[in-house]
Amino acid sequence: MEDKFITMAHGAGGVKSRELVEEIMVPAFDNEYLRQMHDGAKLPVKNNIAFTTDSYVVKPLFFNGGNIGKLAVCGTVNDLAMTGAVPKYISVGMILEEGFPIKDLRTIVDTMSQAAAEAGIYIVTGDTKVVNKNSGDGIFINTAGVGNLIDGCDIAPRNVKPEMDIIVSGYLGDHAAAIMALRHNLQLPDTLKSDCAPLNKLVYKILQTAPKIAVMRDATRGGAAAVLNEIAAQAGVGIIIDEDNLPVRKEVRGFCDILGFDPIYLANEGKMVIFADKTYSSRILAVMHKDVYGKNACIIGSTNSIAPGEVGLRTAIGGIRIIDMPAGEQIPRIC
Amino acid sequence: MEDKFITMAHGAGGVKSRELVEEIMVPAFDNEYLRQMHDGAKLPVKNNIAFTTDSYVVKPLFFNGGNIGKLAVCGTVNDLAMTGAVPKYISVGMILEEGFPIKDLRTIVDTMSQAAAEAGIYIVTGDTKVVNKNSGDGIFINTAGVGNLIDGCDIAPRNVKPEMDIIVSGYLGDHAAAIMALRHNLQLPDTLKSDCAPLNKLVYKILQTAPKIAVMRDATRGGAAAVLNEIAAQAGVGIIIDEDNLPVRKEVRGFCDILGFDPIYLANEGKMVIFADKTYSSRILAVMHKDVYGKNACIIGSTNSIAPGEVGLRTAIGGIRIIDMPAGEQIPRIC
Repeated sequence: MEDKFITMAHGAGGVKSRELVEEIMVPAFDNEYLRQMHDGAKLPVKNNIAFTTDSYVVKPLFFNGGNIGKLAVCGTVNDLAMTGAVPKYISVGMILEEGFPIKDLRTIVDTMSQAAAEAGIYIVTGDTKVVNKNSGDGIFINTAGVGNLIDGCDIAPRNVKPEMDIIVSGYLGDHAAAIMALRHNLQLPDTLKSDCAPLNKLVYKILQTAPKIAVMRDATRGGAAAVLNEIAAQAGVGIIIDEDNLPVRKEVRGFCDILGFDPIYLANEGKMVIFADKTYSSRILAVMHKDVYGKNACIIGSTNSIAPGEVGLRTAIGGIRIIDMPAGEQIPRIC
Repeated sequence: MEDKFITMAHGAGGVKSRELVEEIMVPAFDNEYLRQMHDGAKLPVKNNIAFTTDSYVVKPLFFNGGNIGKLAVCGTVNDLAMTGAVPKYISVGMILEEGFPIKDLRTIVDTMSQAAAEAGIYIVTGDTKVVNKNSGDGIFINTAGVGNLIDGCDIAPRNVKPEMDIIVSGYLGDHAAAIMALRHNLQLPDTLKSDCAPLNKLVYKILQTAPKIAVMRDATRGGAAAVLNEIAAQAGVGIIIDEDNLPVRKEVRGFCDILGFDPIYLANEGKMVIFADKTYSSRILAVMHKDVYGKNACIIGSTNSIAPGEVGLRTAIGGIRIIDMPAGEQIPRIC
C-alpha cells in the first residue's frame, strides 16, 4: 500500500477500500473466521451468549500503557466477562478522518491484534468508514463482542443483598491519570500508566472458584463511584466504602490533589468491582492475588440495608461522606 | 429531560449519560433483553450464529426515504440476512457531536425502533459517546448484529459456478440518487427516495424455497458493480450483465446523465444480488415478486467460465464494456 494518509477513497467501497482491508486489517487480524470473506462472520457458539458494544473516542489516541486500539479490544472483552461470559468474537468498526496517518493506523491495528491474542479472542468481522477532514478526530473505533455464557453463573444486580463484600481488583484511577497527565503536559513517573488490560481470564478463574458471585462491573467512565451508585440503585442496597481501604497509587493521589479530582471517580480500563457473599471473599481474593491483573485486589467495603440506594465513604477520621453518581463531564473522552 | 442539545456531560458516564440512556434510548428500544440493564445483553441463540458490524456516517443525516438511524438498523439486518441467517439482535453505538439537537436524536432513535420492529429484531445493548464540537459530524452510528444461521444453507462465494443466473431484487441506485440530489440541491420527484429497507424477511422466504442459493450480497457502497467484481474475483468466474435488463428508474437515469454517474456503481440500501443455479431462478423470482422489496426483481445476467474474474456489460448495441471495481471515492459518505 503506497498511500501514507487516509483519503476519502479508502471509505468509498472500491479498490482503495479493499486495499486498506486486505493489506492492513486482514493480515493483522487473520483467523479462520475472518477468512470467510463475508460481510458477516459465521461462528459456532453455545446456546446462550452475551453481546455488547462500545465506541472509543479517547483523546489522545496514544498514551502510556496503550492506545485506542488496545482500549477498544480490552473494553469489550471486559464488558463480556462482566456478564459471566467467556469472550469469543469481536467486531471492529473504524471511522477514520481524512488525512489520518496510515502508519498510526498500522500501529493501532497491531496493538488490537496483540490484545486479542492475549485475551484469546478472534476479531471476526469489521467495517471502515472515512469522514472528511474536521468531521472526525483521527480515528474512532467501535467494537462489539460475543461470548459464551458460563453455565451456572447468574450475574445480576438483583443478586446483590445487604452484608455482601465489595472487592476491587487493584489500584484505582491509573487510566484517567495517565490520560489527563498527557493532556496537561504533566511529567509523571513511568510507573504511572493506563491499566488497560483484558480481565476475562482472571474473571474466568474467579467464576470457577466462586460461581455464585452476585455481580461484577468494570469501573470505566465515572470510575468506581459510578459502579457503586448503579448497583446501589439497581439492587436497592446501601453501600459503605472505607477510604483507608481504597487502593490508590501515591502518584495518582498526588495527581488528584493537583487537579482537584477524587480517585473514586476516575476511569479505569482494567479494574473491576465485585459484589459477593462474605463466605466467598477469601477464596476470590486468593485467586485474584495469583493473577497479574488482580494481585492488588482488596475488600473496600460492604453493602447494607440501612440506606438503600446510597453510597457512603467512611473517611479516615471516621465521618461518612456521600459518594454521588458523578454529575457531569468530569473527564471527557477518557475512553 | 430538559436539555435541548448534547453536551460533553452526556458522554461522561454520570447522571447526564444515564438520563440520556434512560429517557431516550431505553423507552424507544424497550424489550426484555435491554431491560437486563447490563453492559452486555444475555441472549438465547442456536449453535451457529452470524455476526456483523457497520458504522454509518451518511451525510446528510435525514433524506427522502429515511435517515441515518434507519440505515444503521437495515444495513446490519441485511448483512446478517446475506450470510443466510435470521437476524435477531442488534447493538447500537452512537458517537454524538457536542451541540447535536436532542430533538433530532429522538427522531433518529424512533426511526431505529420502527425499523427494528419491521425487521423483527431486538436492539439489546448500546453505548453513547460524545465528542467535542468539530471533532465529529452530528451523529455517527455503529450497529453490530447477531443472527441464527439457517440450517441447510451454505452461502459462500466458492459456491458460485459458471452458467448461474444473477438476479437483482429491484431498481438500482435509488439511495445514492436521493442522497446526491439533496447534496446538489436538485429537485427530484417525490417518487425518488432511498430504497433503505430490511430485506431479511424476503431473504428468509427465498431460502425456504431455494436453500441452495450460491451467494447473496446487498449492493451498498460501490453498488452492484462492487458486488459483481467481488464475487467474480472470489469465485473465479466471469460475469456478463445485459444493460437492457438492468432495472434503473427513469429519474435515476436522468440524474446519472446530469452528474456523470453510472447506475451500476450507485449505492443501494435495500437491494441485493443473488447468484443461483438456473434451475432455481423461476422459483426465486416468483417468491420475490410477491414481496414489496422484491416485486421488481429480475435476472440481469449470468456467470461464465470464459473470462474468470472479469465483469462485462453487454450494451444495448451489442458491444461489451468492462465493469471494473469502483476505483475511488465515487460518492463519499453515502452510508
